[in-house]
Amino acid sequence: MKLATLKDGTRDGKLVVVNDRLTYCTDASHIAPTLQAALDNWDQVAPKLELLAESLSHEAVPTLRFHEHDALSPLPRAYQWADGSAYVNHVELVRKARGAKMPESFWTDPLMYQGGSDTFLAPRDPITMGEEAWGIDMEGEIAVITGDVPMGATPEEALKAVRLILLVNDVSLRGLIPAELGKGFGFFQSKPSSAFSPVAVTPAELGDAWKDGKLHLPLHVDLNGAPFGRADAGVDMTFDFGQLIAHAAKTRPLGAGAVIGSGTVSNKLDGGPGKPVTEGGVGYSCIAEIRMIETIDTGEAKTPFLKFGDTVRIEMMDGEGHSIFGAIEQTVEKYQK
Amino acid sequence: MKLATLKDGTRDGKLVVVNDRLTYCTDASHIAPTLQAALDNWDQVAPKLELLAESLSHEAVPTLRFHEHDALSPLPRAYQWADGSAYVNHVELVRKARGAKMPESFWTDPLMYQGGSDTFLAPRDPITMGEEAWGIDMEGEIAVITGDVPMGATPEEALKAVRLILLVNDVSLRGLIPAELGKGFGFFQSKPSSAFSPVAVTPAELGDAWKDGKLHLPLHVDLNGAPFGRADAGVDMTFDFGQLIAHAAKTRPLGAGAVIGSGTVSNKLDGGPGKPVTEGGVGYSCIAEIRMIETIDTGEAKTPFLKFGDTVRIEMMDGEGHSIFGAIEQTVEKYQK
Repeated sequence: MKLATLKDGTRDGKLVVVNDRLTYCTDASHIAPTLQAALDNWDQVAPKLELLAESLSHEAVPTLRFHEHDALSPLPRAYQWADGSAYVNHVELVRKARGAKMPESFWTDPLMYQGGSDTFLAPRDPITMGEEAWGIDMEGEIAVITGDVPMGATPEEALKAVRLILLVNDVSLRGLIPAELGKGFGFFQSKPSSAFSPVAVTPAELGDAWKDGKLHLPLHVDLNGAPFGRADAGVDMTFDFGQLIAHAAKTRPLGAGAVIGSGTVSNKLDGGPGKPVTEGGVGYSCIAEIRMIETIDTGEAKTPFLKFGDTVRIEMMDGEGHSIFGAIEQTVEKYQK
Repeated sequence: MKLATLKDGTRDGKLVVVNDRLTYCTDASHIAPTLQAALDNWDQVAPKLELLAESLSHEAVPTLRFHEHDALSPLPRAYQWADGSAYVNHVELVRKARGAKMPESFWTDPLMYQGGSDTFLAPRDPITMGEEAWGIDMEGEIAVITGDVPMGATPEEALKAVRLILLVNDVSLRGLIPAELGKGFGFFQSKPSSAFSPVAVTPAELGDAWKDGKLHLPLHVDLNGAPFGRADAGVDMTFDFGQLIAHAAKTRPLGAGAVIGSGTVSNKLDGGPGKPVTEGGVGYSCIAEIRMIETIDTGEAKTPFLKFGDTVRIEMMDGEGHSIFGAIEQTVEKYQK
């Protein structure tokens, strides 16, 4: 089953069920007005949505053309957004580029930051920022939306709480990160509003690609129309989503509709730091990573962070080349107050 | 106007208007079903709620007895919870206790952490934790709930977005903080679910006590029935709420219903580190602070963190000794899965 939230002038939008190919949708608001409402009462609501999805596949219900640019993020605002850093390779590279050694514990104890979730961007919204000097970067990631997770859930229990899977652009302001982390309280201004894929899908919808709490497909990240990243989200993911959710729930329960991110998808490959797509590698899911590689290789970063006018596209294809979640596509713009 | 959210079996509870003395309330759900719904449409809804409050004060509407233990936190779950550390004295003491110097910039650039907001505790809920060794502590704070705040708002603009004021117990796990901050991504497991006062009030309701973006009254923090803190929330607050909100909104807008905290209320007084209530001082709003004073004075902390069975009470009185927000009162319990 594939779900989306259409713009309707309200803060939370309107829930629709979308067909497999993302060409049609049907109003689901008689079952649950919003995705959050569906998640709040998932056991009762999901079977009805599944029936509606089945009817949609037979064109047995009224259909509308589905346009990705009509969609908000599936949860336009959420009560919880916690982002892990499960591709530890990425973290090791960050440290290496600044000459620091990564603690061994990072391989066993997940890194996770508490994100803000009140103003998610729509998948086609511009990224509006005050200054290019803030070091605007995309981070292509996988995320899951959970049901209620009790405090102290094991990774196995936590994994069963995964309701939906989607993509995220965890926009980051690299120029603001060092000073902010230096203050010791983690990210705040350096992690502005994130954007999610137009469509969120159930684990069952992903078939074999969803296995062991990981999504085993390449994440397509394009920068200004050119391939920038094709890293496989199922490769080099040190912590699966069950482990990430359990980490988030160690000292508190998680409420239905919690969004948990994977962190920037990153493949090490061949024991090395990976190669750009242009050199036959799988590339990178954020600019910071290619800059680290450049720094390690040549002593200085060459690829600039995003400039006003640049466009980022994040998408994932199934085995037949069809977009699973629709595309996040965002242009960076100067913020005008 | 004073607002509360009554338990009704739903996740978001039911909105009521409460009288000045917190003895009676009246159902407001025909105006807005929940506090979030009221905040989402505040300009239209607030005048109607004010009229209802006026009617309640004349007993011209059906009334119910108001029992604080029937209340959830005013927002039982929120889309944004950002907690500042505006009493810089507190931060300086933390550093001093571990022999570190606080950067000068901390006096001009607010510290703020991104909190989790999906599972706030009710004001009388127990604090259930797995281990006493986690170093369970209360933090008595003031918080505000905002309307929509545009990105880049000035402190003056931000202050105008304050809709409601309330108290918060920002539960902290001191034993987990050093390792977590050492990882560099800020608090996560060390900041479990917070609890808020039963009642949230409008700035107008506070009269002269709400001035210059600060609440000028002592915060009562009791531990096991004995006075522990009486620090004045209007004293030594380096950053007012306008500055805190503007800090949170630098790189993103804030959505209606964002909760912004002051950080632990702390008074330096007389240029010194303050004194316990038992020695005639105003005491402390968290255990960590008295432990720091003890460490600075005698080389070791004596006051233990919270143990299972301990009770914390956080409240604020008006000039006549009446509780303004009702009391947060929580007993610490061992978590049983």
